[in-house]
Amino acid sequence: MKKIIIGVMGPGDQATSRDLEHAYKLGQLIAQAGWVLLTGGRNAGVMNAASKGAKSNDGLTIGVLPNQNTAGMSEFVDIAIITDMGNARNNINVLSSEVVIACGMGLGTASEVALALKSGKKVILLTENEEYQQFFQNLAPNDVFLATNADEAIALVQRFVVAL
Amino acid sequence: MKKIIIGVMGPGDQATSRDLEHAYKLGQLIAQAGWVLLTGGRNAGVMNAASKGAKSNDGLTIGVLPNQNTAGMSEFVDIAIITDMGNARNNINVLSSEVVIACGMGLGTASEVALALKSGKKVILLTENEEYQQFFQNLAPNDVFLATNADEAIALVQRFVVAL
Amino acid sequence: MKKIIIGVMGPGDQATSRDLEHAYKLGQLIAQAGWVLLTGGRNAGVMNAASKGAKSNDGLTIGVLPNQNTAGMSEFVDIAIITDMGNARNNINVLSSEVVIACGMGLGTASEVALALKSGKKVILLTENEEYQQFFQNLAPNDVFLATNADEAIALVQRFVVAL
Amino acid sequence: MKKIIIGVMGPGDQATSRDLEHAYKLGQLIAQAGWVLLTGGRNAGVMNAASKGAKSNDGLTIGVLPNQNTAGMSEFVDIAIITDMGNARNNINVLSSEVVIACGMGLGTASEVALALKSGKKVILLTENEEYQQFFQNLAPNDVFLATNADEAIALVQRFVVAL
Repeated sequence: MKKIIIGVMGPGDQATSRDLEHAYKLGQLIAQAGWVLLTGGRNAGVMNAASKGAKSNDGLTIGVLPNQNTAGMSEFVDIAIITDMGNARNNINVLSSEVVIACGMGLGTASEVALALKSGKKVILLTENEEYQQFFQNLAPNDVFLATNADEAIALVQRFVVAL
Repeated sequence: MKKIIIGVMGPGDQATSRDLEHAYKLGQLIAQAGWVLLTGGRNAGVMNAASKGAKSNDGLTIGVLPNQNTAGMSEFVDIAIITDMGNARNNINVLSSEVVIACGMGLGTASEVALALKSGKKVILLTENEEYQQFFQNLAPNDVFLATNADEAIALVQRFVVAL
Repeated sequence: MKKIIIGVMGPGDQATSRDLEHAYKLGQLIAQAGWVLLTGGRNAGVMNAASKGAKSNDGLTIGVLPNQNTAGMSEFVDIAIITDMGNARNNINVLSSEVVIACGMGLGTASEVALALKSGKKVILLTENEEYQQFFQNLAPNDVFLATNADEAIALVQRFVVAL
Repeated sequence: MKKIIIGVMGPGDQATSRDLEHAYKLGQLIAQAGWVLLTGGRNAGVMNAASKGAKSNDGLTIGVLPNQNTAGMSEFVDIAIITDMGNARNNINVLSSEVVIACGMGLGTASEVALALKSGKKVILLTENEEYQQFFQNLAPNDVFLATNADEAIALVQRFVVAL
């Protein structure tokens, strides 16, 4: 039976230490809730931290990889989906997630938030940057939600998942 | 010999009348310069207006389509690239363009701007909305440029194309 | 830690009853070996039968879906990867599988076998049709293997997985 | 107005000298007929020879490239579509072509023939290898056609294009 997949998107090498803390905690809470974590799968930043957090709670982790093999993959990925599609794989990331959490912001993350909203997904922005919030809320007022920590983000996910 | 392709991205049904005027003019100027126009190819908004403008000046137009056939294609598209990839085709749009002009803003356009910047392309934002400008300039300070009309946008393209 | 994923490809609606028996058994044996099953995920033919077989042994099943949502998905899929890429998702199917088993033959399956071999994967053809065997062995003599039942196919997989 | 695009698919480095002669001639005849040539765009084998042939008759050539830039592109490509999708771009090649001609055979070509037939396209096999013919005619009896030289292939295309 289809498992519930929650996507955590965020910067790789540009992630801040705060992003990494949030991501690790998100991974832990997603695993605790019995959901499956999906990330971009690389051994960097939010992808790696969230996957590590999920594994610390015995969660299941999916990594949707941009390259043609597993080079550069996070060691905390259980299920490697190898796309060889570069950044076009960002669309698969968001389509495969029931809810998308953007933990921090970067160009890849911005594309994922935009693609998720474009396909009607709910997106939770875990950031304190008001400019980011306004940008996306302007474009999709009904589907963008804000959280300032991992617990708040997961409480929102819980609400959306029940409603699915 | 490889022709120079300039991408014009922008909203479909949500395009404003101002976006449409800008897009038509961009198409005209791109054709006049001897470049090839690339859009998302649909019979809507900025895609259609830019293609129409280019054809009014005997330009060549490419449409990179999201579906599995030409249903919904602009009649002003000469070269239909059929991807059947939905919004993941946005990455092809920007990779295939030497320079990307975002004419107006929407969720698809935002994903294209982010993907273009992610792959190191220069992007010209043709908008008067300062929030949009700040959002992307924050994420990619060196590659985002602003224009308030089609002539300004094309002057920037000219500069970048010479430098390629 | 990355789990071992074995891909089972085969016809949907055109699958023979023999293909379906083979597929169900393959799914059972893949689950028994502790591997993860990957299929094209649709509620038809080999995809559905293999997934059902894997679930009968408490295996984990991935479905890499062609559409933009889970419509038409096999109820025996645990992890739905939603690509919205139509048949281009066939390349993801094979890249994500350590070894590919083609159970029966059809146009989609033929594309998957060709793409798998193109990327250097080993492919096991579970068919008694000599023409199919010869066609692919001609094109990739070192990577095509033959099996006439599920046990033989899994014995080959076992050998390849040990060697990885 | 949409131009008619004819796809010529075939081996890269593995192309025989006969394949190259056929491909060059196909390119010439496609240009002569006023159609646009589409290939996989690389500077190798059938892709390069067909593009060169088309340019010798002032034709327009499209190359749908697998990588993230134009490295390795044929110098005879006018319109470079940059996909960064590896072999998954094969599906775009065939969807964008009104008719597909397979000139010679290889693993990539086999995937393209299968994907073209899967999406209902007519495919002309330009080969004297009866095994290849039988393999695909078995899987799609109504859509596979045979030619032993470029003129025959183009006569078939002419027939199909009129019927479109």
